[in-house]
Amino acid sequence: MKKNNWFFESTVPGTLNTIRIGIKVKKKIFLGKSPYQKIEIIDTFSFGRILVLDGIIQLSQLDDFIYHEILTHSALFSHPYPKNILIIGGGDGGCLREVLKHPIKEAYLVDIDKKVIEVSKKYLPFVSRKSFQNRRVRVLIEDGIKFVKKYRNFFDVVIIDSTDPIGPSLGLFSSKFYQDIFKALTSKGVLIVQSGCVFEQFRHLRKIYDKLNKIFPSVKIHKACIPCFQCMNEYSFTMAAKFNLDRIKQKQIEAKFKKLKLKLKYYGPDIHFASKILPRYLKNKLNIKNC
Amino acid sequence: MKKNNWFFESTVPGTLNTIRIGIKVKKKIFLGKSPYQKIEIIDTFSFGRILVLDGIIQLSQLDDFIYHEILTHSALFSHPYPKNILIIGGGDGGCLREVLKHPIKEAYLVDIDKKVIEVSKKYLPFVSRKSFQNRRVRVLIEDGIKFVKKYRNFFDVVIIDSTDPIGPSLGLFSSKFYQDIFKALTSKGVLIVQSGCVFEQFRHLRKIYDKLNKIFPSVKIHKACIPCFQCMNEYSFTMAAKFNLDRIKQKQIEAKFKKLKLKLKYYGPDIHFASKILPRYLKNKLNIKNC
Repeated sequence: MKKNNWFFESTVPGTLNTIRIGIKVKKKIFLGKSPYQKIEIIDTFSFGRILVLDGIIQLSQLDDFIYHEILTHSALFSHPYPKNILIIGGGDGGCLREVLKHPIKEAYLVDIDKKVIEVSKKYLPFVSRKSFQNRRVRVLIEDGIKFVKKYRNFFDVVIIDSTDPIGPSLGLFSSKFYQDIFKALTSKGVLIVQSGCVFEQFRHLRKIYDKLNKIFPSVKIHKACIPCFQCMNEYSFTMAAKFNLDRIKQKQIEAKFKKLKLKLKYYGPDIHFASKILPRYLKNKLNIKNC
Repeated sequence: MKKNNWFFESTVPGTLNTIRIGIKVKKKIFLGKSPYQKIEIIDTFSFGRILVLDGIIQLSQLDDFIYHEILTHSALFSHPYPKNILIIGGGDGGCLREVLKHPIKEAYLVDIDKKVIEVSKKYLPFVSRKSFQNRRVRVLIEDGIKFVKKYRNFFDVVIIDSTDPIGPSLGLFSSKFYQDIFKALTSKGVLIVQSGCVFEQFRHLRKIYDKLNKIFPSVKIHKACIPCFQCMNEYSFTMAAKFNLDRIKQKQIEAKFKKLKLKLKYYGPDIHFASKILPRYLKNKLNIKNC
């Protein structure tokens, strides 16, 4: 196994360096550096093109639909009539592509790193290129933490599609930031956060879960397997809302899903509910009652 | 990364050699050979002890409960009153441990390889040692294919806990064998088969699914993430029954689960149903209607 032909991820923050996943490389497409991070695009045999930020895989051509569909639609289908949407991070445009499938008014994409957007548009056109041209989209190159402070009772859904809690993304996991988002959300507002691997990054997930529970009346963890992630188990997406998420019934989501005629590959009303069923050991670890 | 300190799995049958997972080794505990396969026990940092047959990980100390609970209880809770149970393979004793939590009459464990049982008893006592001493257990060292032919209308549940379809296990994936199991099952009989990774071994899963659908009136795929497997996505467990599995209601399983007072870490009535919800892309690939 020649090292040059294989891509090995850097250690995912919060994990021990005792598992390594190697992915066979077809071609290195792009390598560059922004003021915030190292950016790579690599073509691989198993996953097609992958986007790598500071050594960590962010998405792959093969399975970006799983990650972006569950992150976006779980949140948008939980809100009765999402009109103004905010995506923090997500410079690759995958969440934006999914948000635009809904009859929303405006989608704000706030990413601190302009270069991620440029590189994604050029080398990952299958993710997003068309979305950035949509007239309902406003792209802002700035710090999401500062951006959110400017709004009160404005966004119906906020999606945090960030890198792991290290470097430029660290502040995106703070209680203060979550409080500011709470204020920026409308009365039926919904927040969803990529919250790491259930297994390797459990401590990180628990912190997010506990912080959100102190601010929002209802918090649920959705899970999905994302093949390209260095994550031996499921990946988590933590949703927090200003109302009781348990009140949403499958029939409501089914009716809305049918009405919108969405053609999705992963998400559906059945997945919406199945993805938030946690195994008993995980409920115990999170101190969730009724185990 | 010194190669000696890392365990790299052999290529999983049916997959391309374009992804490799390395697991950091603490200590090599056992290495031996039976007439059927190479057997290894390795202590690792992330997973504790792992059992490796012909280079492929079969279980780990960390997560054997996930694999064995979903394989065993999904099937046993689908049968109204399972009395006679047959486990084919499963020489590590993990399924046996789970089966014995039910008020069954007898559990037959039929494994072709005596050495797997001996090595597991000695080096993986947390999986099974006590189970093999249980008076309800009959262990038979013989070929499961020949064993099944001797029975008619006798077993309520059959669990195939085999290695991948290569070498000694190849015949355990044939239509002829599944037909013989059909005959060996009682009128409410249930079969469950470990059927590989949903992602890397999809062709293999589809073959099993199609073969079982030609023999049994009802077939469902259950899924779970098994962290120690070289499987970037979920792992599949295909269940086939002589009756319509869709007729089983969550309330029935909840009542039975409560009555038996099982203390499990992974499986529960909610997981039973959530684990068989398939994402739309997978339903399409398997030609399952109502997508």
